[in-house]
Order: sequence, then C-alpha cells, then structure tokens
Amino acid sequence: MRVLGIDPGLRRMGWGVIDVAGSRISHVGNGVCTGSGSDLAARLHTLFDQLTDVVERFAPVCAAVEHTFVNKDAAGTLKLGQARGIALLVPARAGLSVAEYAPNAVKKVVVGVGHAAKAQVDHMVRMQLPGVEIAGPDAADALAIALCHAHHARFAGRLDAAIARAGA
Amino acid sequence: MRVLGIDPGLRRMGWGVIDVAGSRISHVGNGVCTGSGSDLAARLHTLFDQLTDVVERFAPVCAAVEHTFVNKDAAGTLKLGQARGIALLVPARAGLSVAEYAPNAVKKVVVGVGHAAKAQVDHMVRMQLPGVEIAGPDAADALAIALCHAHHARFAGRLDAAIARAGA
Repeated sequence: MRVLGIDPGLRRMGWGVIDVAGSRISHVGNGVCTGSGSDLAARLHTLFDQLTDVVERFAPVCAAVEHTFVNKDAAGTLKLGQARGIALLVPARAGLSVAEYAPNAVKKVVVGVGHAAKAQVDHMVRMQLPGVEIAGPDAADALAIALCHAHHARFAGRLDAAIARAGA
Repeated sequence: MRVLGIDPGLRRMGWGVIDVAGSRISHVGNGVCTGSGSDLAARLHTLFDQLTDVVERFAPVCAAVEHTFVNKDAAGTLKLGQARGIALLVPARAGLSVAEYAPNAVKKVVVGVGHAAKAQVDHMVRMQLPGVEIAGPDAADALAIALCHAHHARFAGRLDAAIARAGA
C-alpha cells in the first residue's frame, strides 16, 4: 500500500510518500510544494498543480492530511483552511481515500506522546525510515502523517481491505 | 465583460453570472453547487466539479469571491476556508483574474449601506437584474458579489480614464 501524507500550508505544503507491505515500511519520496503568485487564487493554483504532479508521479492508493485549526486568529485559520481545501481536493480528484488525523494523534502514533516537540517527530521519522533525506520540517510532518496512517490502518485491520481495493 | 460571482460555502456554494457592457448590466445565470459525499474530501471534490462546469459553460472573463471569516468558532472558519480554497482555485485554473470583496463592501455597493439585511440585498439584486429568477439566498449573494465587481471595475475604469485625461 502506498500512502501519501500531506501537511497543508498556504506558503509551504509538505508531502511524503511511503510504501507499506505487512510490517515493512519504506520511504518513497518527500518534498514541499510552494505557493507562489501575486494573489491568493494564483497561490492556491500553484499548490494544486504541484500536488497534482506528486499524485501522478507516485500514484499512492490513499492519502492522509493533518486536521488542525491551531491558529489563534480567524484570518490565519481561514488561510490554513484554504490550503487544506487543496490538500483534500487533489487526492480526492485522483480517486484516493483521504483520512484526516489531528496533530496530537500523529505525534502519539509516531513518537508515543501527544505533545512531542518538532525535533522529536523528525527524529522518529528518521528512525522509522532509515537513510531518508528530508526536504524540511513540512516534509517531515507529512511523512509523520503518512506513518500515522500506515500504523493506524494496520491496527484497525483496514490494511487488508485497502490492499484488496488497490488490487481490484 | 462577463463576471462570475461566487459565495463560498461547504454545503451550498452560490454562483451568479452577469454581462456588463458600458452601463448596461444583464443577468446570464445563477445557481448553487451542493457539496455532497461521505467525507470532506469528497464534498470538496463535488464542489470543484460543479463549479468547473459553471466556468466552462458560461466562460466568464473574471471572477469575484466574497472574503469573509464570520464564524465565531475556529472549526467553522476552517470549513469555510476549505470551501473558499475551491472557490478561488477553479476560476484561477481557468485563467481568470479573481477579485475578493468583504461582505460589507458588497452590501455597500449593491444596497448603499454596509450592514444591509439579506432581504435588502436580494431586493436590490432583483432591481438591478429585472426579471431574474434566483436559485436561493446563496445564488442571490453570488449575484450581489458579481454586481459589486462590475460597479467596482466600472468605477476603476472611469478613474483610469479620468487620470489619463488629466495627464493628457
């Protein structure tokens, strides 16, 4: 099962792809889509195009997106929401199932505690994907989300169903 | 000039299309895209497809989207943000310029006061587009946004012309 993790952001959208086969997890790719352009619509469009390229290039069978509304201000939450809209749309357009995980759930699964520091998440991602080169903190978060989904799917017994769907 | 106005929403996304030729404004179409599906990603996907159809069917040259973060709670603002992401992306993908207007600016232009009631907006939209059949409150709001952009663009055009004359 190939899993795409996405850490949504309007300026930097992290992505990470892993392969899961039984208990074996391996790194496939990671990177950051960068929103650029003179206005918000143009920025969302560049994020859409770059993320669509990632989905086409790596052909994951499912996706997981961080579910968060951390910002203290409404303007910041709205911006994040707009980026999340793209992060959810792109895999849905490609026919993938899209799971959502709260940041604390991701940390709990990947690190073992819900309130882990960024450095700890980064460390555990490197432990679970030996030799991985990570494109930055947003890409590390995206890989953590993908790992969270892989572990979650395995524990929930959904992995077999997902493989059956992917093979069908 | 054909203008597409969009009133973003996750369950109901209003749209309205008008034609502007000098001081003459005429109604072209209006309606509501409805987000449906088992999860958020699927819902955003249905909105994306329906709005893309509208853009392809009516071929507007520019778009205007309401800029708002009205909700009291972060979860509501995030939801609205996700819908706005789609509302901004779809016209940008089609190469249209996308303007954003605050709700009070729309009301001020269309009704004359910034804090107009919904019924007042609806009434003024019907006054400015005689004989129009409106698909509901979200479609009325979308037509109001399109009218706001038309008036704004005309004023900006007059301003440019005046500046050009003054400079000549």
